Amino acid sequence: MAAQPVIKVAGVCGSLREASWHRGLLHAAMEICKDSIKGIEFEYVDISTLPFMNEDLEVNGTYPDAVEDFRKKIEEADCFLFASPEYNYSVTAPLKNAIDWASRPPNVWADKVAAIVSAGGNFGGGRSHYHLRQIGIFIDVHFINKPELFVWAFESPPKFDSDGVLTDEETKQRLKGVLLALQSFTLRLKGKSE
Amino acid sequence: MAAQPVIKVAGVCGSLREASWHRGLLHAAMEICKDSIKGIEFEYVDISTLPFMNEDLEVNGTYPDAVEDFRKKIEEADCFLFASPEYNYSVTAPLKNAIDWASRPPNVWADKVAAIVSAGGNFGGGRSHYHLRQIGIFIDVHFINKPELFVWAFESPPKFDSDGVLTDEETKQRLKGVLLALQSFTLRLKGKSE
Amino acid sequence: MAAQPVIKVAGVCGSLREASWHRGLLHAAMEICKDSIKGIEFEYVDISTLPFMNEDLEVNGTYPDAVEDFRKKIEEADCFLFASPEYNYSVTAPLKNAIDWASRPPNVWADKVAAIVSAGGNFGGGRSHYHLRQIGIFIDVHFINKPELFVWAFESPPKFDSDGVLTDEETKQRLKGVLLALQSFTLRLKGKSE
Amino acid sequence: MAAQPVIKVAGVCGSLREASWHRGLLHAAMEICKDSIKGIEFEYVDISTLPFMNEDLEVNGTYPDAVEDFRKKIEEADCFLFASPEYNYSVTAPLKNAIDWASRPPNVWADKVAAIVSAGGNFGGGRSHYHLRQIGIFIDVHFINKPELFVWAFESPPKFDSDGVLTDEETKQRLKGVLLALQSFTLRLKGKSE
Repeated sequence: MAAQPVIKVAGVCGSLREASWHRGLLHAAMEICKDSIKGIEFEYVDISTLPFMNEDLEVNGTYPDAVEDFRKKIEEADCFLFASPEYNYSVTAPLKNAIDWASRPPNVWADKVAAIVSAGGNFGGGRSHYHLRQIGIFIDVHFINKPELFVWAFESPPKFDSDGVLTDEETKQRLKGVLLALQSFTLRLKGKSE
Repeated sequence: MAAQPVIKVAGVCGSLREASWHRGLLHAAMEICKDSIKGIEFEYVDISTLPFMNEDLEVNGTYPDAVEDFRKKIEEADCFLFASPEYNYSVTAPLKNAIDWASRPPNVWADKVAAIVSAGGNFGGGRSHYHLRQIGIFIDVHFINKPELFVWAFESPPKFDSDGVLTDEETKQRLKGVLLALQSFTLRLKGKSE
Repeated sequence: MAAQPVIKVAGVCGSLREASWHRGLLHAAMEICKDSIKGIEFEYVDISTLPFMNEDLEVNGTYPDAVEDFRKKIEEADCFLFASPEYNYSVTAPLKNAIDWASRPPNVWADKVAAIVSAGGNFGGGRSHYHLRQIGIFIDVHFINKPELFVWAFESPPKFDSDGVLTDEETKQRLKGVLLALQSFTLRLKGKSE
Repeated sequence: MAAQPVIKVAGVCGSLREASWHRGLLHAAMEICKDSIKGIEFEYVDISTLPFMNEDLEVNGTYPDAVEDFRKKIEEADCFLFASPEYNYSVTAPLKNAIDWASRPPNVWADKVAAIVSAGGNFGGGRSHYHLRQIGIFIDVHFINKPELFVWAFESPPKFDSDGVLTDEETKQRLKGVLLALQSFTLRLKGKSE
């Protein structure tokens, strides 16, 4: 019996805030992968050093150093976990910026799998998901349909501490469900599921 | 009979490229306002100096200098003309970033009128409009419904020269139609239309 | 001092269910208008008798009888209150159908004001709002931006009884807020606000 | 070497018009499958006999006869080709209605693959695609990302004859490309691709 292959998940956070809940979601995801899921290697990919997307910065088909580094990490990943806050009913600028850079030729997102998680009041960051999914069509990302994870961050019990660390056990279980679905769909599209 | 009041239109460009068609659309709009529309003062508002949106940069309720300057120009305007390119089926990062900064308290977009123009292949930049309109709900911008302007930039006759200058006369007329509708809806919401 | 004009609000319900919460929201709105808002005449407009939209049913520029009746009521209204359930992340078929019939030439929605209310689990029907707002662009409806009303129907205290009657006092107050904003924006666009 | 399995494609048309371009697209797809693609069995599924979606019509977990028949055809299919016209910037009521009926428990769309084609002026029916894709999330349909097919029906050369028959050879080739991608993604998700 062949061992299940290890897949690489790149975690991309749409918020630049230090104590961001979304960073907290990705750190929690990383720990869950280490502690209780077999077959996922999780890497947090920083996007804070990227310049604003501007094709004028592309010279002879090469990109600024920070962009090249970022693109390399996206290229090496098998799938993505986006922690996508909702700012003004859409995705954040830093997240869109990172996506746009990695979509430049050759588009390094292409034909890979992704999932989205978010936290917030109101819809728990939900409106950002649907804009992100539309973006995914053009960059050719296959989003899992279910489960969707919207963390209602202001409801009791508390979900995060003041440093943005995810503390709520039930939310961790739901996050684990997202990771398992991401893994499963990735393997299925790779033709590696049993 | 009272004279029609002069309204201030702030033009905001979603592309940072030097020879951007979208910059070209705004420059053409500025000329049209000067030459053939009475009652509009058009200002091109630069967004290229803004840092990435990050609430950690807000200190004691004040914003970085470039942000304060930008917010002041938005606050002074009566309405907005967004030149909004479609990157990966949505708005650009620089545009979203500018919108997010000016939405911070007090939200200086609130209760003002706006229109969107774009250029491109395929849908002429059109997919960005609908994401932008959803963003507008939360920042409380009233978009005009019609006319919408999508410039099919690759069809003949040519629409822009290689510096991004709008050269096509018919497109200029359509752009003028957008400006007149923007002016009319702005005056109507101000209670100043006849 | 001129009296404030009376405006006509047409209430359109996206659900055909007998005990629909959305019907309940419209009935509550009707009572609120009667009891505690001056200047609104509220009419519930039935859409259950409309055939499916099909241009083949248009003969010599006339529409089936049920369609003509419906179009007349929409034409007579100054503004609209849509009670829009979310079915499968979008608007319902009966609602879309009614909208499409009334948009046929001459489009009787044109240049009027509208608001949306909904109830449900998850986002409280919210995803339907943003699809409806996009539809509104083409039929030239001006939606109020705020307040948005999403009723989280499964949270305590209960919001509706088993017949779909809205019983929750706080929700009634929020619904009244929507009606007042709808009235105010309608008068403003008519040039009749003080 | 195992033979490639035959997949069943159900074609669903969002227009009820007799001479509909969208019906024409599906008929062309059916012919293409018969004549020049191996391994696809294409069935046109009629939705014109369905009543309006109304949960009150569900009795003891059974549905009206026309609904049961429709649901059976959807259940038997491996994947779907939606011919989705854009009415007022969204999907049509008949299409949404069909989708909603087949989503009732048990959801017979679940975990299957789909593609969208459309024709029209302006965006070639394109705005309907993105609403349909959002609907697909909840009913758990996996849409192919590429190719997207928007037929600009008013551009020369003519695309359809007056009966709605697709006559343009290049459009047929693009339609074939959609069918091949649909087949390929379906097989991939079934674990049956080479």
